[in-house]
Amino acid sequence: MFGYNRSDAGAAAARDAGFDASTDLTAVLTRATDEQALIVLGTPVNTLEELLPAVARLAPDCLLTDVVSVKQPVADAVERLHPSARFVGGHPMAGTSQSGWAATDPDLFDSAMWMVTTEDDTDPDVWLAVATLARDCGAQVVPAANDAHDRAVAAISHLPHLTANATAAVGAGESGLALRLAAGSFRDGTRVAGTAPALQRAMLEANRIALLNTLSETIDRLVAARDELRDSGSVAIIVDDGHRARLAYEQMASTPAPAIADVEPGEDGWAHEMRRQAHLGHTWQR
Amino acid sequence: MFGYNRSDAGAAAARDAGFDASTDLTAVLTRATDEQALIVLGTPVNTLEELLPAVARLAPDCLLTDVVSVKQPVADAVERLHPSARFVGGHPMAGTSQSGWAATDPDLFDSAMWMVTTEDDTDPDVWLAVATLARDCGAQVVPAANDAHDRAVAAISHLPHLTANATAAVGAGESGLALRLAAGSFRDGTRVAGTAPALQRAMLEANRIALLNTLSETIDRLVAARDELRDSGSVAIIVDDGHRARLAYEQMASTPAPAIADVEPGEDGWAHEMRRQAHLGHTWQR
Repeated sequence: MFGYNRSDAGAAAARDAGFDASTDLTAVLTRATDEQALIVLGTPVNTLEELLPAVARLAPDCLLTDVVSVKQPVADAVERLHPSARFVGGHPMAGTSQSGWAATDPDLFDSAMWMVTTEDDTDPDVWLAVATLARDCGAQVVPAANDAHDRAVAAISHLPHLTANATAAVGAGESGLALRLAAGSFRDGTRVAGTAPALQRAMLEANRIALLNTLSETIDRLVAARDELRDSGSVAIIVDDGHRARLAYEQMASTPAPAIADVEPGEDGWAHEMRRQAHLGHTWQR
Repeated sequence: MFGYNRSDAGAAAARDAGFDASTDLTAVLTRATDEQALIVLGTPVNTLEELLPAVARLAPDCLLTDVVSVKQPVADAVERLHPSARFVGGHPMAGTSQSGWAATDPDLFDSAMWMVTTEDDTDPDVWLAVATLARDCGAQVVPAANDAHDRAVAAISHLPHLTANATAAVGAGESGLALRLAAGSFRDGTRVAGTAPALQRAMLEANRIALLNTLSETIDRLVAARDELRDSGSVAIIVDDGHRARLAYEQMASTPAPAIADVEPGEDGWAHEMRRQAHLGHTWQR
C-alpha cells in the first residue's frame, strides 16, 4: 500500500507513522501502473478536475474507486475526464468532525457500512475488487445505484449538517447564558457543525438537487410544527413522527444486517438483485 | 432524604436500591413538615396542578424548589396554587433521552450547570438553600431570571428537540437504504428524538412563546440556506455561521467557568449582580 498526499505536512506525518506516502503525483501513479494497484481517490470532490486527468494519463489501466461522499458527480467527472476508466465508486459511511492525519483511526471502518456503486452496467470484476477492499477494511458492503445513494445521504448525512448548523447559530445567538446552559441535546445536535467549513461545503454543494428536496421537506415539517404550536399549543405531530423514526433507526442499528444471499457478481441481473436486497437493509458480507 | 413516587413500580425500584420512597403523598408531605425538609419537585410540569395544592395544605412552611424544565410556568403555578410558598425554582441542565428509575445515574449532576431562579424579589435565604443543594449534588449554579432562562433553553434544548425530530422523520421517510447508511451525523443529530414523546411534549409545550420565536428564526435560516443553495449552489452562510457558533460553544464548554465573585445573597442588588456575572458565563461555585 502506498499513497499520494498533496500536502508536505500530511505526507510527512504519514511517513512518520510508517506509511509509504509521497507528494509526487507522477511517481505515485507511475508506480501504481507498475504494480497494477487498485487506486482509491480520497479527496474532496472539487479536486477531481486535477486528479482524474493525471490518472487517465499515467495509470489508465488501474482499477479505480473513490471514497468521495456524493456519487453521481464523481461518476460524471470520471465519464468526462477518464472515460475508459475501470471505475466503480464507493462511499464508506464513517468519519468524524475531525480531519487531517491526526484524526486517523485504524478502527474507523470496523462494521461501518460501505456503499459500492451497483448499476446495471457496472463491471462485476471491478465491483468485486472494490467490495473486497471494503470487506478487508472491516466494513459491510451496501450495493446501491448512484442516484439512490445520493438521495439517501442527502437525508441522513447532509441534512443533519444543515440542521446542526442552524441550531448552533440560533443557540449561540441567544446569549452567553444560553451557551453556558447548553447540555447534551445541544452538544450532540450541533456536533457536525464543528466539521471544517470547506469540507462541509464541498460535500453538501456537490449534492445540490437531492439536498434541496430533503431540505424543503424539513422546512415544511418545521413550518407545520410552528403552526401547530402557535394555533393549538401542541407539538404532537413532529414529536410523534420523529420519535417513531428514531426508534426505527435504533432498531435497525442495533440488529445485525442480514447477508445478501443467492446472487453472484456477473450473474444475469446481479446488480438489480443486489440493489433489491440492499433496499431491504441487507448487506454484502462475503 | 426521602421521596414520593406516584408509581408503585418506581417507588419499589427506589426502595430496592436502598432509598426511602413512598407512594403515600400525604404521609411524605406530613413527614416533610415534621423534619423541616427542603422539598424538590421533580415531575413533568403538568403534574403541578395536583402536587402544589397538596404541598400548600400539608407542608406550607417547607422550603420548596423544583427541577422542572421551564421556569416561568412553574413560578406562575406556584403563585396561583401556593402563593405563600418559600419557593425558589431551579433547573439542572443534565439528563439523557432515557427516563424511569433504571436511567438513574449517580454522577448525572457532576459539573452540570444548575440554573437557580434569581429575581430581584427572590428570598436570599431560600436561594442559598437551593443553591447549596445544587452544589452538594456536584453542580455549578447559574443564577438567572425566569424569562431569560426560558428563552435560553428554548434555543439550546427545546429547539434541538424539534430539529432532531424533523431530521429523524425526513431520514426515515427516505428509504430503508437511507437508515442502513445512517452513521454518526444522523445518530447524534437525532438522539434526543428518542426521548419519550410525553416528556418532550410537556417540556416543549410549556415553553410555547419562547420556542415559537426560536423556531421561527431557525426556519428563516433554513429558508435562506435553501434559497442560497438553489440560486447560487452555495451553503456558505449557514455553514460559516453554524461552524463559528459551534466553536464558540466548544470554547466555552472546554474552559472552566470563572466563579461569580464579590456578591453575597441578600446584599443590596445581589440578584442583579449575580445575573450580570452569569450573563458573562460565570457560575456560583461556593
